[in-house]
Amino acid sequence: MDQNIITQLKQIAGKDGVLHTPEDLAVYSYDGTFEEHCPDVVVLPRTTEQVSQIVKLAAQEHLPVVTRGMGSGLAAASVPFSGGITLSMTRMNRILEIDEANATVRVEAGIVTADLQNAVEKRGLFYPPDPSSVRHSTIGGNVACNAGGPHCLKYGVTGDYVLGLTVVLADGRILRTGGKLIKDVVGYDLNALFTGSEGTLGIITEVLLRLLAKPTVARTALVEFSALANASRTVNAILAAGIVPATLEIMDETALACIEAAMHLGLPLDVEATLLIETDGTDEASVVREIEAVAGICRQCGARQVRVAANEAERANLWKARRSVSPALARKAPNKLGEDITVPRSAIPEAIRRLKAISAKYGLPIVIFGHAGDGNLHPNILFDKRDPEQWQKVEQMVAEEFALALELGGTLSGEHGVGALKRPYMEKALGPVSIHVQKSIKQALDPLNILNPGKVFPD
Amino acid sequence: MDQNIITQLKQIAGKDGVLHTPEDLAVYSYDGTFEEHCPDVVVLPRTTEQVSQIVKLAAQEHLPVVTRGMGSGLAAASVPFSGGITLSMTRMNRILEIDEANATVRVEAGIVTADLQNAVEKRGLFYPPDPSSVRHSTIGGNVACNAGGPHCLKYGVTGDYVLGLTVVLADGRILRTGGKLIKDVVGYDLNALFTGSEGTLGIITEVLLRLLAKPTVARTALVEFSALANASRTVNAILAAGIVPATLEIMDETALACIEAAMHLGLPLDVEATLLIETDGTDEASVVREIEAVAGICRQCGARQVRVAANEAERANLWKARRSVSPALARKAPNKLGEDITVPRSAIPEAIRRLKAISAKYGLPIVIFGHAGDGNLHPNILFDKRDPEQWQKVEQMVAEEFALALELGGTLSGEHGVGALKRPYMEKALGPVSIHVQKSIKQALDPLNILNPGKVFPD
Repeated sequence: MDQNIITQLKQIAGKDGVLHTPEDLAVYSYDGTFEEHCPDVVVLPRTTEQVSQIVKLAAQEHLPVVTRGMGSGLAAASVPFSGGITLSMTRMNRILEIDEANATVRVEAGIVTADLQNAVEKRGLFYPPDPSSVRHSTIGGNVACNAGGPHCLKYGVTGDYVLGLTVVLADGRILRTGGKLIKDVVGYDLNALFTGSEGTLGIITEVLLRLLAKPTVARTALVEFSALANASRTVNAILAAGIVPATLEIMDETALACIEAAMHLGLPLDVEATLLIETDGTDEASVVREIEAVAGICRQCGARQVRVAANEAERANLWKARRSVSPALARKAPNKLGEDITVPRSAIPEAIRRLKAISAKYGLPIVIFGHAGDGNLHPNILFDKRDPEQWQKVEQMVAEEFALALELGGTLSGEHGVGALKRPYMEKALGPVSIHVQKSIKQALDPLNILNPGKVFPD
Repeated sequence: MDQNIITQLKQIAGKDGVLHTPEDLAVYSYDGTFEEHCPDVVVLPRTTEQVSQIVKLAAQEHLPVVTRGMGSGLAAASVPFSGGITLSMTRMNRILEIDEANATVRVEAGIVTADLQNAVEKRGLFYPPDPSSVRHSTIGGNVACNAGGPHCLKYGVTGDYVLGLTVVLADGRILRTGGKLIKDVVGYDLNALFTGSEGTLGIITEVLLRLLAKPTVARTALVEFSALANASRTVNAILAAGIVPATLEIMDETALACIEAAMHLGLPLDVEATLLIETDGTDEASVVREIEAVAGICRQCGARQVRVAANEAERANLWKARRSVSPALARKAPNKLGEDITVPRSAIPEAIRRLKAISAKYGLPIVIFGHAGDGNLHPNILFDKRDPEQWQKVEQMVAEEFALALELGGTLSGEHGVGALKRPYMEKALGPVSIHVQKSIKQALDPLNILNPGKVFPD
């Protein structure tokens, strides 16, 4: 990178805010995927104004700008394949305002989401979206990917909480959207446009979020099904009864076997699926009535056993199983590749059947768990990346996973985004007209194509 | 209009699908506002394909295309000030599919929203958004304006239910967005972009909506407050307790006096405000517990009286009051002009105080009611349009209403949209950067500016 540009970046962000040794660059070369590419320089801004100046310089020099939070993304959206400037937002991690009367919080984009959650919970407030990365991913990254999580069936995804954004545009201008307003139909919905745009339309530097009152009571049940089809039928029956549990998570037999082998929690190994179901609220009697109604529906739909946690310790144990999936997989094989395909929820049994067929065809395990109420499944392929033959199989298997999702009326991603990895499948998923419309929006907002180039869209 | 174009339009939409006599055109010259302008021709398409062909012809001839449903809009968004083609969507009113397993419905854009609601309710499903025009406005218009309603505090606005759209673009291409997917983060959120775009980015011809299970139980309370500030405090206290009522409507003393004069329902005339609060669900005990908790909070916050309806007849009577606001206003003055400003909900008492000051300053009544939980108020100015002096005052009063909303951190519209009427206030509301970003999206998607020209944006 041109020394003159480095000098200018240091003038903007301070000497300690610019990294450019090979060792430093390597730290910012990867995310939660297997992809890797070094940026030419890393800048760690402390203010929106600094971001604006950095982008103005990048626009002048036609340099790519790739924004990242903690680099936990699962679609390689923040891997800087074209080099250029990587903006690390982690120093912009302040809480700017908690407004209790209006139940909102304004934060800088680089705050870790769990830190934000803890801060508002101290005031009796609640920010529900809970991606599994919640303890290390940043809210800016969550917004840029429109992150989900187990709580999102009842409470909605990240985008449902975005009331306003501060965004640095591709020419360095600062855009402010929204406000402390539940309803706002003045002009186009720019909050929604930037949410999920994966750093390709602007750089999110501040986020204003809607909050709820913190639920004070929860009841949790683990439900065993000998037949997968009955688990799926149960999901529909619960929702049709007007009950929207806080979580409604499915784990198939492969996931259960993995977790049990690692954790010895006494999980059933002779079932096709379990559902982990939680109800919550602020009124204990109502929450209890709801889990009892859920239990009744489960039994009617052919559940073999319904275990409602009798106390907090039992509840923690049930959650331990769900939260142990990823570490348990790590013990089972050197590598895993988890996708997040989404299908209409009635198609879940067929999706799982086809995933098992893909696993059998290639001879590599696929462990299946996910958010059954949302139709959002996480098939995880277990393999050893050192074996090139296995890696080739994995790539073919992923392509088949995406194909089955589309065939069943679903799509490529419910939570992770497109990034670099799903670009080849975009045209098939959305069709040429949608791609053209989206590219024309990208072109209108970033005519030099400097913001996260080479992401989201096929070439 | 060129006879040749009329002939081509008849070839596309059939002879009975094209209207061009002055009498016919006059019928399509106005909406729910005081604005009026005749189109040059009205076309009533029956299919998306016909809409596509009409728009291709319009693009070729550089003719404006203004789409309308039932013309109930309150911002003159469908008044064709530039003439051209008005597309009336009312013949595209079919229900295409109700999918019970996935709880979705697919409809043509011209269906009246209440017809859609009734059809899904017969299957035990529920489409919650309930603008007061629900019995005559169309779902296409609701989506184009992102309509709200009393139910939207608990259930969300129209846009929260849009899973997919069929849209005819400005060059006649047909775009299909979304699917039967609760979570979908593949590419930009085009559903959200077209929702609320008021016919300026594309023509919505089909809508795929998410549905819920129909609530089977409701409890309703009318709560009287001697002091307005206590009513507002109560709203915050209820939400802070983790209770989200199905409705939380406020009526001030002017609204109560109007309704009582017209309807003789025994409403209190010596209070500053009432709240109409409803809880609903599928479990009677929980719904009852919730309204009892609400009643307790109301009393703690200084309510003078809490009347919970003991039966369905009493409940109907309470709703009668809320639903009678508009007809009652019509008896009080020849004309009314209702806005839908939105403020952070903590600012409601100050907003009402300032609205009363505007009323006093100009000597015309402002009746205030609205969705207190959302901060969305409907100040209605009562006047006689035949008196030019009064009309001039009304225009000044509206400008002051918008100014106060912006000063309190609010915005111009929570439900009605910008249309033609709020354009002069857009730059002040959103700032030049936001307007420029939005105009660049408009330019990218409609380079000839034929889709509802002269709407939403300032010149």
